[in-house]
Amino acid sequence: MPRLFERVTVAGVGLIGGSLALAARAAGLVGEVVGLGRGAANLETAQQRGIVDRYSHDPLEAARDADLLLLAVPVRATAAVARACAPALRKGAVVSDVGSVKAAVLREVEAVLPEGLSFVGAHPIAGTEAAGAAAADAELFRGRRCVLTPGARSTPAALGKIRALWEGVGMQVEEMDAARHDRVLAWVSHLPHALAFSAVNAVLDADPEVLRYAGPSFRDLTRVAASSTDMWCDIFLANAAQIDGVIAGFAATLEGLRQAIASGDAAQIRTQLARAHAARRSGNAQES
Amino acid sequence: MPRLFERVTVAGVGLIGGSLALAARAAGLVGEVVGLGRGAANLETAQQRGIVDRYSHDPLEAARDADLLLLAVPVRATAAVARACAPALRKGAVVSDVGSVKAAVLREVEAVLPEGLSFVGAHPIAGTEAAGAAAADAELFRGRRCVLTPGARSTPAALGKIRALWEGVGMQVEEMDAARHDRVLAWVSHLPHALAFSAVNAVLDADPEVLRYAGPSFRDLTRVAASSTDMWCDIFLANAAQIDGVIAGFAATLEGLRQAIASGDAAQIRTQLARAHAARRSGNAQES
Repeated sequence: MPRLFERVTVAGVGLIGGSLALAARAAGLVGEVVGLGRGAANLETAQQRGIVDRYSHDPLEAARDADLLLLAVPVRATAAVARACAPALRKGAVVSDVGSVKAAVLREVEAVLPEGLSFVGAHPIAGTEAAGAAAADAELFRGRRCVLTPGARSTPAALGKIRALWEGVGMQVEEMDAARHDRVLAWVSHLPHALAFSAVNAVLDADPEVLRYAGPSFRDLTRVAASSTDMWCDIFLANAAQIDGVIAGFAATLEGLRQAIASGDAAQIRTQLARAHAARRSGNAQES
Repeated sequence: MPRLFERVTVAGVGLIGGSLALAARAAGLVGEVVGLGRGAANLETAQQRGIVDRYSHDPLEAARDADLLLLAVPVRATAAVARACAPALRKGAVVSDVGSVKAAVLREVEAVLPEGLSFVGAHPIAGTEAAGAAAADAELFRGRRCVLTPGARSTPAALGKIRALWEGVGMQVEEMDAARHDRVLAWVSHLPHALAFSAVNAVLDADPEVLRYAGPSFRDLTRVAASSTDMWCDIFLANAAQIDGVIAGFAATLEGLRQAIASGDAAQIRTQLARAHAARRSGNAQES
């Protein structure tokens, strides 16, 4: 595959940033990779694993002459890092991100990005509760979806290169309005995390001893409660409006089930369960 | 290991009943195994897989001279099947079950069981969303917990044999008050199922298209929504009082998180997330 970028600065060499660097290098899509971050230990790991060629703690040093700045930092830090790096980028460089929230990031990055730089919002829908360069995996993205949310600063050329980058590491890429993306993700990702954190906390409030008896269903429900708390605090705040509506909608549905159980309404319970059962069996099989 | 029972009637040769038959036979704990059920295809599968030696659709025929009746039918059918089989059982036979709800079953079975038969409630905490004899697996129970809930009809001898049976297939067995069991399971199993069914239904109500974008977190959350709707309707009804309190407790915790997000209270969000994160990292590792 032809090389897309000569020098990539990866700001935040964690699970997503590190995996993309590994996968893009393996596919020959990028030349030099420079890491930007605060923690020396993580960046050392990244260098030892061949994720980055070199790294710096200084934005201007790390971004110098890069033709791609990949922002893989927590959502709320994205615009600030973009602003700090921008002056050092090559003329015509592309800036992109990997955040789980797109409307707020798009608005904030566009507000700080100097003329002559493009921005393409991207969200590779992949990941685990693991974190850091040590968890990076070149195969993380294969077969999964990546949503691009073009904005006012997305030139056709930049959009094409970012699409080629994610397709090149095995993703199914599609474009979507940023607000639509944020609503979809509130349902399929942010809600599951809110439920996971809340389920663990509700048990801790009620009776921590019951955790000893957790079986597969509780473990699956709460797996993502082991995710980074800083990252998820950021996501919840950056997508607060959509998440509020989604949690309210979910709570109403759960309350309906609670009432059906409390009133012993077997027909109603069975109807609700059968509907979910059918959708889960059919709709989700393709995503496994 | 010494043989515990000469002839076992397994009422309901599904995932749990079938797996126990396979495991107990492999360990030499039981002699003949007779299946009881309604569906001919499932029982044929059970016989072909060597789960049962023979089967019948008639309770008195299937239970004749058995010294163990294992009730592995949906919770609400348990007492009726016990009553139908009881007259044919050997004198002094042991009756046991595998249900996820214990107080209601204990009450109902004790009310119908003739003199001279023992009853020991048991709940092997294992299973998947798969169902039927085809999914039976002799290794399903290994290393997992089994809770026994002794009652008025649990003789020491019967209790000892049921303990030996589940220990013999690899489980960690412990005894618990039936009401306590039902409260614990409402948290670690019934709540996760209620959340899974409700999450799928809430998405279907709001915007079914978003299911196309489901990633690992939504998939893990909703995996158990593929479980048997009849079985789960029964469990919800049989444990209605405990589940009502648990859903209410969970909903209050979720509402607290929603309010923290809506008000942009980063410190409060971070506190809640960090608490769940720490418990999930430490407490649950041992159950993996």
